[in-house]
Amino acid sequence: MATPRQMKLGAFLMTDGHHVAAWRHPDGRPDANVSLDHFVRLARLAEAAAFDALFLADSSGVRDTAVASLSHTSRAVGFEPLTLLSALSAVTERIGLVATASTSFNEPYNLARKFASLDLLSGGRAGWNLVTSSSEAEAQNFNAERHAAHADRYDRAREFAEVVSGLWNSWEDDAFVRDRDSGLFFDPGKLHVLHHHGRHFRVRGPLNVARSAQGHPVIVQAGSSEAGRELAAATAEAIFTAQATLEEAQAFYADVKGRLARYGRDPDHLKIMPGVFPVVGRTEEEAQEKFAILQERIHPVVGLSLLGTTLGGADLSGHDVDGPLPDLPETNGPKSRQKLLIERARRDALTIRELYLAIAGARGHWQVVGTASQIADQLEERFRGGGADGFNVMAPHLPGGLEDFIAGVVPELRRRGLFRDAYEGRTLREHLGLPRPAHRAPRPQPRAAAE
Amino acid sequence: MATPRQMKLGAFLMTDGHHVAAWRHPDGRPDANVSLDHFVRLARLAEAAAFDALFLADSSGVRDTAVASLSHTSRAVGFEPLTLLSALSAVTERIGLVATASTSFNEPYNLARKFASLDLLSGGRAGWNLVTSSSEAEAQNFNAERHAAHADRYDRAREFAEVVSGLWNSWEDDAFVRDRDSGLFFDPGKLHVLHHHGRHFRVRGPLNVARSAQGHPVIVQAGSSEAGRELAAATAEAIFTAQATLEEAQAFYADVKGRLARYGRDPDHLKIMPGVFPVVGRTEEEAQEKFAILQERIHPVVGLSLLGTTLGGADLSGHDVDGPLPDLPETNGPKSRQKLLIERARRDALTIRELYLAIAGARGHWQVVGTASQIADQLEERFRGGGADGFNVMAPHLPGGLEDFIAGVVPELRRRGLFRDAYEGRTLREHLGLPRPAHRAPRPQPRAAAE
Repeated sequence: MATPRQMKLGAFLMTDGHHVAAWRHPDGRPDANVSLDHFVRLARLAEAAAFDALFLADSSGVRDTAVASLSHTSRAVGFEPLTLLSALSAVTERIGLVATASTSFNEPYNLARKFASLDLLSGGRAGWNLVTSSSEAEAQNFNAERHAAHADRYDRAREFAEVVSGLWNSWEDDAFVRDRDSGLFFDPGKLHVLHHHGRHFRVRGPLNVARSAQGHPVIVQAGSSEAGRELAAATAEAIFTAQATLEEAQAFYADVKGRLARYGRDPDHLKIMPGVFPVVGRTEEEAQEKFAILQERIHPVVGLSLLGTTLGGADLSGHDVDGPLPDLPETNGPKSRQKLLIERARRDALTIRELYLAIAGARGHWQVVGTASQIADQLEERFRGGGADGFNVMAPHLPGGLEDFIAGVVPELRRRGLFRDAYEGRTLREHLGLPRPAHRAPRPQPRAAAE
Repeated sequence: MATPRQMKLGAFLMTDGHHVAAWRHPDGRPDANVSLDHFVRLARLAEAAAFDALFLADSSGVRDTAVASLSHTSRAVGFEPLTLLSALSAVTERIGLVATASTSFNEPYNLARKFASLDLLSGGRAGWNLVTSSSEAEAQNFNAERHAAHADRYDRAREFAEVVSGLWNSWEDDAFVRDRDSGLFFDPGKLHVLHHHGRHFRVRGPLNVARSAQGHPVIVQAGSSEAGRELAAATAEAIFTAQATLEEAQAFYADVKGRLARYGRDPDHLKIMPGVFPVVGRTEEEAQEKFAILQERIHPVVGLSLLGTTLGGADLSGHDVDGPLPDLPETNGPKSRQKLLIERARRDALTIRELYLAIAGARGHWQVVGTASQIADQLEERFRGGGADGFNVMAPHLPGGLEDFIAGVVPELRRRGLFRDAYEGRTLREHLGLPRPAHRAPRPQPRAAAE
């Protein structure tokens, strides 16, 4: 009997929670961003529930340079993901460990090496979420005035991923014979030197880290632009994406899965996991009350800033939050979302506060507020309806929001046969149902041809 | 009563040991370079003995590109130090964690951030060993044909250290008020944006990691060139150095300590810790036998390669190892060591094998073979004789060599009052007797002036 298809679940750990006011939650940890023990607790919680992976976002700098609103959030500082996941690798046994890292602000050798090292430390549980980053503030920490244009970033990202993949194939799986008697440590015929000479990078290789139990780290992506989807179709093994509605999720799913054939890839070898921001109550009322605890704690300066950003960089400071949205000048921001929001404000006669509360929770991600059974229904609908292979669970506050999901929704999913009772495998690839990549000897590029 | 001055001890963990044949030791772990549990054991061993720190060297690539000899050593692959120490931070409580990282192949923002993150993960136990790297093979992994010249590397290193230090002062110690009631997370007046515009780097800041219990990571250096000593005098808080003889150690110690006054620094705020390669036996004979177990296992191809490198890159392959050293052409290598070695071979009529055995053990470091009491005598002589503030212990093989040192030499040092019985502090700075650095607001450079 074939195993029925089951959901993949990631625990997307945003320090104190995904809600911008999570740090003010009465049960929260305002010191979460400097507390390893907080993350150890979360990791063990998710692992006990047999989640596929922990997932950490990243920013190579403090993105928001508007200090007035920034100072009323906990987002300015936190652990760096690779060091944090390395620490967690030593105190967990099975759960996957996925860190985000940018192709714009790293060198491929360093990145390939650190992820390969995490992969070995964890016994084959690492994943790399490839991003190109989009903020000016980060670029300014790396010798640039402005961030590179989107097309250039993706051109670099494509070559970056190619170099990283080549470096992860420096050694065949059985290269290390470790024969004490003869004194031979590795078989020289199973070492492959990359000799990459490309447009952005020249990298000799080989990598100074061996392959892991799962071959190499799982490659994850998050971009949903045209270039992002194409790069994902070519290289990604999982996608963490933001899709607010079922229709959007289905369209994205069909589009990306449809691109894989062109690369000779099996659509099942790319798992699409949209984010979901769940607020779980024993009753609908309790769920709404739980959500209100967070919503009430959004400081107006933060609400105005979030709304201004969503409206393409509008400056709303000084406006009465309980008055209507003022007329706004045209900006360079994403037009469609901006327009929809302004239309909604006019139609429903919303105050500024009502408007920022409407967007502040999941910020573009899918938000579900209800009972465990109601939430399981919605997850099942997307999962069975061609919208998702699983979900990246974005707990509104931590640890409480994750505890609620695990205590309520996970058992409900299990009753329906939609989620595993316990881990069957040991590596992240085994959890996700991805094939272990066979070693591919990198083809050295003749120097003359590449230059 | 003033506490008598005591030695600092680092455990310099070279995967399976510092001896090039350590992986072939009958009690060794040939899989040490992929085994976290091996390092967890070593870390706990050193922590139980109250060592000041674990220390890891680093190479941003496979340095030795001569595959025949490389394949007979375990040096080609291993964990990346920052990820490994992050993992160890979660399973240790007190011991310092010092990783080497190069200023030539990193961006200061990334490096400042990862070390600050490790410092927080460990509760203030991190240290950064600043190196500029010197191998061509590493440079070729980072878009270069050749490595930058020594002077250029040090020019970059000086500015790099300045940027890192500035970033570590982005936040005052009490910047984070985390006031749930008012909603203020940090005091904007205690955030300092760097705005660095220098010759090598433009870095806006601030760092997105808070300061740690020890302020910021301890800065360690290893270079012993003129430029290296001067940079150390200006910025380092500990030096891990290679001094083979007492006289060399004393001269180095006096020279470097003498440079600190020029920077307004207290000589006691820079700890000088030469490496020591100890082989400990219950008797002198047993120590020699233990050493022989390793020496006998040096594969000739490895011995020839080590000797060739020491002789400035001479190619000795094809020569009879039991015959005399051939006449060698002039090379560009370090002349004095080369000359001394050739003189010794001629004077003592040594075969090639005898010559490589003479240099293969500690490779330029101080080698002591004897009883615990004899080794303690020698350490005491250097410590009291103005040659060292402590030692970086380079166990010949692991875990055995470290166990021998801890079981034999450490108790002997304690009997003499030369080493602590247990940790008194919690941070690496407290162990080393270094002051906690007060926050220094970086002075933003006016852009016009710096460009």
